[in-house]
Amino acid sequence: MRTVVPDRGQGRLSEAWRYCVGTGRFDLALRRDYQESLALVQREIGFRHIRGHGLLSDGAGVHRPYEHAGERRVRHVFTYVDQVVDAYLDLGIRPFLELGFMPSGLASGEQTVFWWHGNVTPPASHAEWAELVRATLRHLVGRYGLDEVRTWPIEVWNEPNLKEFWQDADEAAYHRLYEVTAHAVKEVDAGLLVGGPAISPGADEWLPRFADFVAARDVPCDFVSRHAYSSGPAQHVPFGVHQTLMPAEALLEQFATPRRQLAGGPLAGAPVHVTEFNSSYRPDNPVHDTAFHAAYLAPVLAGGGEVCDSFAYWTFCDVFEEIGVPASIFHGGFGLLTHRQIKKPTYHLYAFMARMGEEVLARGADHLVTRHGDGRVSVLAWAPADVTGGDPVTGHQVRLSVPVGPAGSAFLLRSSVSEEHGNAWAAWRELGRPASPAARELDVLREAAEPARSHRALPVRDGRVELDLRLGAHEVTLAELTPVLVDETPPWWDDRRLLGLGEENPA
Amino acid sequence: MRTVVPDRGQGRLSEAWRYCVGTGRFDLALRRDYQESLALVQREIGFRHIRGHGLLSDGAGVHRPYEHAGERRVRHVFTYVDQVVDAYLDLGIRPFLELGFMPSGLASGEQTVFWWHGNVTPPASHAEWAELVRATLRHLVGRYGLDEVRTWPIEVWNEPNLKEFWQDADEAAYHRLYEVTAHAVKEVDAGLLVGGPAISPGADEWLPRFADFVAARDVPCDFVSRHAYSSGPAQHVPFGVHQTLMPAEALLEQFATPRRQLAGGPLAGAPVHVTEFNSSYRPDNPVHDTAFHAAYLAPVLAGGGEVCDSFAYWTFCDVFEEIGVPASIFHGGFGLLTHRQIKKPTYHLYAFMARMGEEVLARGADHLVTRHGDGRVSVLAWAPADVTGGDPVTGHQVRLSVPVGPAGSAFLLRSSVSEEHGNAWAAWRELGRPASPAARELDVLREAAEPARSHRALPVRDGRVELDLRLGAHEVTLAELTPVLVDETPPWWDDRRLLGLGEENPA
Amino acid sequence: MRTVVPDRGQGRLSEAWRYCVGTGRFDLALRRDYQESLALVQREIGFRHIRGHGLLSDGAGVHRPYEHAGERRVRHVFTYVDQVVDAYLDLGIRPFLELGFMPSGLASGEQTVFWWHGNVTPPASHAEWAELVRATLRHLVGRYGLDEVRTWPIEVWNEPNLKEFWQDADEAAYHRLYEVTAHAVKEVDAGLLVGGPAISPGADEWLPRFADFVAARDVPCDFVSRHAYSSGPAQHVPFGVHQTLMPAEALLEQFATPRRQLAGGPLAGAPVHVTEFNSSYRPDNPVHDTAFHAAYLAPVLAGGGEVCDSFAYWTFCDVFEEIGVPASIFHGGFGLLTHRQIKKPTYHLYAFMARMGEEVLARGADHLVTRHGDGRVSVLAWAPADVTGGDPVTGHQVRLSVPVGPAGSAFLLRSSVSEEHGNAWAAWRELGRPASPAARELDVLREAAEPARSHRALPVRDGRVELDLRLGAHEVTLAELTPVLVDETPPWWDDRRLLGLGEENPA
Amino acid sequence: MRTVVPDRGQGRLSEAWRYCVGTGRFDLALRRDYQESLALVQREIGFRHIRGHGLLSDGAGVHRPYEHAGERRVRHVFTYVDQVVDAYLDLGIRPFLELGFMPSGLASGEQTVFWWHGNVTPPASHAEWAELVRATLRHLVGRYGLDEVRTWPIEVWNEPNLKEFWQDADEAAYHRLYEVTAHAVKEVDAGLLVGGPAISPGADEWLPRFADFVAARDVPCDFVSRHAYSSGPAQHVPFGVHQTLMPAEALLEQFATPRRQLAGGPLAGAPVHVTEFNSSYRPDNPVHDTAFHAAYLAPVLAGGGEVCDSFAYWTFCDVFEEIGVPASIFHGGFGLLTHRQIKKPTYHLYAFMARMGEEVLARGADHLVTRHGDGRVSVLAWAPADVTGGDPVTGHQVRLSVPVGPAGSAFLLRSSVSEEHGNAWAAWRELGRPASPAARELDVLREAAEPARSHRALPVRDGRVELDLRLGAHEVTLAELTPVLVDETPPWWDDRRLLGLGEENPA
Repeated sequence: MRTVVPDRGQGRLSEAWRYCVGTGRFDLALRRDYQESLALVQREIGFRHIRGHGLLSDGAGVHRPYEHAGERRVRHVFTYVDQVVDAYLDLGIRPFLELGFMPSGLASGEQTVFWWHGNVTPPASHAEWAELVRATLRHLVGRYGLDEVRTWPIEVWNEPNLKEFWQDADEAAYHRLYEVTAHAVKEVDAGLLVGGPAISPGADEWLPRFADFVAARDVPCDFVSRHAYSSGPAQHVPFGVHQTLMPAEALLEQFATPRRQLAGGPLAGAPVHVTEFNSSYRPDNPVHDTAFHAAYLAPVLAGGGEVCDSFAYWTFCDVFEEIGVPASIFHGGFGLLTHRQIKKPTYHLYAFMARMGEEVLARGADHLVTRHGDGRVSVLAWAPADVTGGDPVTGHQVRLSVPVGPAGSAFLLRSSVSEEHGNAWAAWRELGRPASPAARELDVLREAAEPARSHRALPVRDGRVELDLRLGAHEVTLAELTPVLVDETPPWWDDRRLLGLGEENPA
Repeated sequence: MRTVVPDRGQGRLSEAWRYCVGTGRFDLALRRDYQESLALVQREIGFRHIRGHGLLSDGAGVHRPYEHAGERRVRHVFTYVDQVVDAYLDLGIRPFLELGFMPSGLASGEQTVFWWHGNVTPPASHAEWAELVRATLRHLVGRYGLDEVRTWPIEVWNEPNLKEFWQDADEAAYHRLYEVTAHAVKEVDAGLLVGGPAISPGADEWLPRFADFVAARDVPCDFVSRHAYSSGPAQHVPFGVHQTLMPAEALLEQFATPRRQLAGGPLAGAPVHVTEFNSSYRPDNPVHDTAFHAAYLAPVLAGGGEVCDSFAYWTFCDVFEEIGVPASIFHGGFGLLTHRQIKKPTYHLYAFMARMGEEVLARGADHLVTRHGDGRVSVLAWAPADVTGGDPVTGHQVRLSVPVGPAGSAFLLRSSVSEEHGNAWAAWRELGRPASPAARELDVLREAAEPARSHRALPVRDGRVELDLRLGAHEVTLAELTPVLVDETPPWWDDRRLLGLGEENPA
Repeated sequence: MRTVVPDRGQGRLSEAWRYCVGTGRFDLALRRDYQESLALVQREIGFRHIRGHGLLSDGAGVHRPYEHAGERRVRHVFTYVDQVVDAYLDLGIRPFLELGFMPSGLASGEQTVFWWHGNVTPPASHAEWAELVRATLRHLVGRYGLDEVRTWPIEVWNEPNLKEFWQDADEAAYHRLYEVTAHAVKEVDAGLLVGGPAISPGADEWLPRFADFVAARDVPCDFVSRHAYSSGPAQHVPFGVHQTLMPAEALLEQFATPRRQLAGGPLAGAPVHVTEFNSSYRPDNPVHDTAFHAAYLAPVLAGGGEVCDSFAYWTFCDVFEEIGVPASIFHGGFGLLTHRQIKKPTYHLYAFMARMGEEVLARGADHLVTRHGDGRVSVLAWAPADVTGGDPVTGHQVRLSVPVGPAGSAFLLRSSVSEEHGNAWAAWRELGRPASPAARELDVLREAAEPARSHRALPVRDGRVELDLRLGAHEVTLAELTPVLVDETPPWWDDRRLLGLGEENPA
Repeated sequence: MRTVVPDRGQGRLSEAWRYCVGTGRFDLALRRDYQESLALVQREIGFRHIRGHGLLSDGAGVHRPYEHAGERRVRHVFTYVDQVVDAYLDLGIRPFLELGFMPSGLASGEQTVFWWHGNVTPPASHAEWAELVRATLRHLVGRYGLDEVRTWPIEVWNEPNLKEFWQDADEAAYHRLYEVTAHAVKEVDAGLLVGGPAISPGADEWLPRFADFVAARDVPCDFVSRHAYSSGPAQHVPFGVHQTLMPAEALLEQFATPRRQLAGGPLAGAPVHVTEFNSSYRPDNPVHDTAFHAAYLAPVLAGGGEVCDSFAYWTFCDVFEEIGVPASIFHGGFGLLTHRQIKKPTYHLYAFMARMGEEVLARGADHLVTRHGDGRVSVLAWAPADVTGGDPVTGHQVRLSVPVGPAGSAFLLRSSVSEEHGNAWAAWRELGRPASPAARELDVLREAAEPARSHRALPVRDGRVELDLRLGAHEVTLAELTPVLVDETPPWWDDRRLLGLGEENPA
């Protein structure tokens, strides 16, 4: 059966999918591999904001207590902050600031998280914390201008509902931190945007309480935030884990929860940012590297913007050290790119989304159809991704009748990733899984990582193209239809006079 | 039937195919598009020398007569020569100097060739010509060093056997020019390499007479040169021509003729450079843009080095103006690249050759098998190209038993161009043949121009891989086999535990 | 005596000086050296538009008559036009289109101008000319968009008052050409800007007649244009000329004439573009290369914007061929840059202007004072340039009292070019005038071409800095004053504790 | 009095000064700022090797113990090692490997050094350490080839004579570590170069004992190494220190000690590498940023190669974290460059050395004279640097009679850094010491950091130029003399005909 795509648009495609992307800790952004990865991502995808941990942790070197004239003072140092933010802006991406973790010189305890030891205890002095927040924002406003910084959302802490990230997961302590911080932000400028509570899945009850708290105490709150992951518990092997996954709908459900929870309450209508999402929350789950993963997330990217204001893929590249230095080029990292810029299938899912049009023409369980201002139509289609572990489906069909207007023909360019194509991980496996590939092997992997491309001229009848897409295992495909409005072939031209094209003109 | 490739090498693969490449006239090398094209070609192919017309024509501005103190003098100006040669050397390519055409201030007549008016008459003064040659070479030696310039062959004039290129095709006049020039070259340095007669096809009788002449007069001659083309007469349409082609063997035969002709004579053993070759000699024959062309030339590239010392593809890019400014991005130009660096199928034929190994293992009518120093085996295979105009053959099979040594498996990376893939011309036709494509269309054409890539793990039995290559219409394919000597898969790893790979591990 | 610079601004600094710049003929823009020069110029100066000859001449290959089905047709080809305009826009500069010269296939005669043979005869068919104009503009609008092309002024022909540029300097024929062209432009879009008559100096009487003509016939005219040069007749030596110069005021007078002439008439208030200006109109006058030239033009750049809407330096670089291939790196070319991007003193005059502030604080015979939005003050000052050939003045003093606001001190960064510094021509002379410098010599010349820089902290008293500038021979200097609003020196710091600074802290 | 420079060379200029340079810890090399700094340094200076700490510390992630099948195993991971070494080789610099510090998973204790916690305790298992060394070297040999790695010296540990760097400064424990390590190195390949003991100043007695130990136990030792610093004890202020300095001769004396100590013993004639040197050993001593520092080190660079085989400046850039994140762009760091590539005066001292000739003509207390293969003569001269803290000397004279051969004149290009020029630190001070400069300020600092340049034509008499150099405070100057062998000025040329040059030709 063929789906008839309406000619009239169904509204604009939300930019929620590209509004923000996740990153490893702040000071990793100083690295060349990181910046080259981000440059590539920005060229082909173009995220708007970037969010990660550690802006205030020791590695960024901001909070610097010292002694002078017999007393303790604090210097605020922005050597690295400026290098990173300068680079972000040069690359066309803006910070989504996360205020955390605790500088060791301001911490009330010793508890840390991650291989890189982010301190997760409350401040020893809330006044000094507030001053740190104010000094940081004043510096950023001074350097980048108020108009610029007002576009950067500022989130207070990360996943305070988890003991690993906030000592004792102490909700009252988080509320206090939020209150102090939100006021400090607004003291710098009332137009700066502050929000929270940045909770992980499984703590939905925090959000209504947070809304009530800020309402009761009249604490500023410009947006709310949460995270979304769909994996089950980790079964460990050395340098890796395996996990079950919930169906992709579970992610969309997590995206949708805050709007429902806030409806009718004091924060009703506040923007909802899903400031982290992925399938697995583990940076060593090989699922992130697979073709399956792109097919699994395709409906999430296609539909997520309907239920929240942004959802940030965690993370854009594998330059990431939460559990230490990655032991192999493919290691199940979160990244869209491995170290050294090998594109994973999910990278292409994002790159395909970046080539969609502004106007939605149709949505379906296995497709999204959009139109560009110049009349081109872009179709994203995907094969099923079965989380119960069955054999992948090959031969899934997507059949559409697509309106392209009054052209004589349409040029179809199709780009695909699947188990077979655009799947560098598969090539790496066939190469014997070299942990640290040689230059030649990197070249091979980059070649293997490119999507399969094909093209064809399709007839247009009554302003429509009948598009039949047969999808391979875990295929995600982008079909771009360009109506051929002007045929510049001169009247005297006859392709049959060319050698090699045969009697039958193959065009 | 399967060809068994011997494990023992059959000698080194000759570099004759990449020793030299042709180019449009000298001053076109000042252009950015030209230099970007050459940079790409050098990165992926890596020619050693480059040869074109016009070093001494007015456009390069070398020969500059003027009056001073009442008498005529000549200044030799190297403003552009230095810019071009500096660029060549920066790009890792060396000149193959062609001395010509005649500066208008030194010409004895008015006859010119090409849209850009190269003067093709003998010098009004052989002494002033000799001084021009000496001054030019002295300048080059002074700027680039004697060791460097001694590696640049120096050819005297171009196709003097044709009236279009040398007034009246006057053989005696050419011999005189050659003699004067060869002596001028050797006066600068006896180690500089000089040769001729750079004849076009159809003038085979010139070569023995040239050999006799230089022997009789004791004129220096370090190499001989000729051209090779395989097309028939041109049938014109506006901005284009159609021509018949002889089978590819005709080119190999033209390459082979000089060695046979010189054998036993005074120039026996002199290096033979085919300083131009192509199918058609017309810069507006669409055959140059096609997939057919790559398949047609594949056996020529694979085998040409057996019968001559070099054969230079005419030309590396479409920046070329012999019949005027090209009227369309695809216009049947000689180039491996169009303007703006769109790769034609023949480009990939060269790029595939550049990935072959140093050692030949086997040669066949439809394949060439080579081995690299590190044990990898590269196979070039090609489908038939029928010059009689029949329908292209699809499904041609090449079956080889390839020795890869004692590995557990081999990684196959296959890259192909054919009527369907790596064929930007076909995509351009489907787009409605836009003469001057917009930025988006250029992007599409560049994507369409990339070869199809696929990869697989193949079993190794008794040190051999059974390789079955099924070729599409006019396909040229590069199959690269990397023996997997170390499998770094850890003992605990089980791909079946990954979601999406199914019960049957597809690897 | 010290000039007291007022604290209140005297209006915005006009951008007339950077609105447009001249260039060699259209197809030279395809060259790499040209584009690298333009990239440098745009990075450090930032012109808005670029204007040169030859858009419609044979070298650009637009007008292409051919025969088909027994009749003459014309194809319009934009292969090179698009390459050039794409490059311009990429480099942040827009065309100022000049429609000319005549394609040989449309010309009514054989007369040409320049080494590159621009045909200067009227069209054989005004209808075919109009179609050429329409086709060109339609193509540009199609490719770059109407909003973009509406910002490109379109000038009809070049210097029709000179027999060299327009057959017989036939005014009536020019008026006819203008009328046909202006209507053709407006047929494409009424919002496109068309103007003329692009006259050379010495033909002031053409302008009122042109104004009357367009008024009488109701011909569209959106701006008027003229050229300005200040040199006397050429005394030739081989590869060069010498000329007398009028004082710089003569250029300002030429800039000012059109507004006066048009006042009260039908074109009163029309924008006046001086679409070419320079001292000498010869591309082989060494004055262009000298420090004298920068000092000579400094008052012109500082003041020209008061009397016209733009004045375009002829030309931005030495890639230029009106009298043939330049015979030496320095050859008296018009360029701000030589081949290979050696900066001449006049380049720096422009680069200094590009660092001036938006607001004029003071103007004087030897200085211009401006303020930036952030409070910095930039001063341009220049030494006298004596056109009568006397010894250059050294030690000219410019003394200013400059308002910088309530800072503790001001940081002065001074950049200067003069006979001694920033004068690559002088270094080249000392090197023995190598016509085609080696790589090392080019490095030396580039180093010698950089302005002298010095810096100092100056005291601020009552919000003012007393600035004393002593100028060397033909010095042009940029003095940039940055008020130091925050001194971050920590309280414990004492420079006297540093080794090497001595007892007296030099700060 | 004028020094007469002999015409006959005094031997080749040793490359000891550029053989090696120091760097911050291994994983800092992953940063973009670091690699951009190194690229600049390599372009203008060109060191041969680079040495720093931390190859085996946790930050590089090499040693990775894990559990599998109930037992402890170790995986060796080269993710970061390969990224760094790939980058080094791409930038034209080779590792000088330092084996250390101890991975925490292999350490016998908890003691660490630096803000980044390098563990300085002996291995818990010498066998596992030896395996770590072998695995690392085998990997490097596999990736880069044996010929390459054989050129990389391998040093065992760092400053074991200091308790901060080696637990208890236990000499016997170091000897044992050295022995195990040296044998492990040679087990990989006998041609790899191993050495030690990398001692700090003040432990000269360790070297003879080390020589005796390796001789007695027949332990391989291909070179010996030590460090050199000339500063006194640190007086701390917040974020900085002040120290006294010994005269520069003290450094040369430290360089010279090992050859003297080893003479006649078992290691006599072994290459001596000073693997670290600087004035102060503190990364927060402002002396590193000053013009004084360049003048102070000039005689060390000029003369050090006479007494040892290499001396490595510690360090090439300020990307360095031994005492934490630098709090300000200038902070007294070791670097030749600050963050973001602002050149310090000492950078230029090195860049000047890189422009010296291969052949030494003369050495003096304030100068070094060299000649290039092409006849150019380069002179390095320096003003006195008084370590007792007096006012800097201005007006120091260096007068030389320099042989340049039979030229008509010589072109002098002089480049200088001093208190006034090429001194970005002084400009930064005048700007109010902005800790984290804005983009504009960085531009200003980069401009201020360039050396002053001047040029002149000097007469040649009897093949000699009389060179008078007057030096400013702490000036280091490079005077490059190019004999003008060919004067290309045409016979008709007369500069007096140019406007602006006056009656007297200033040339």
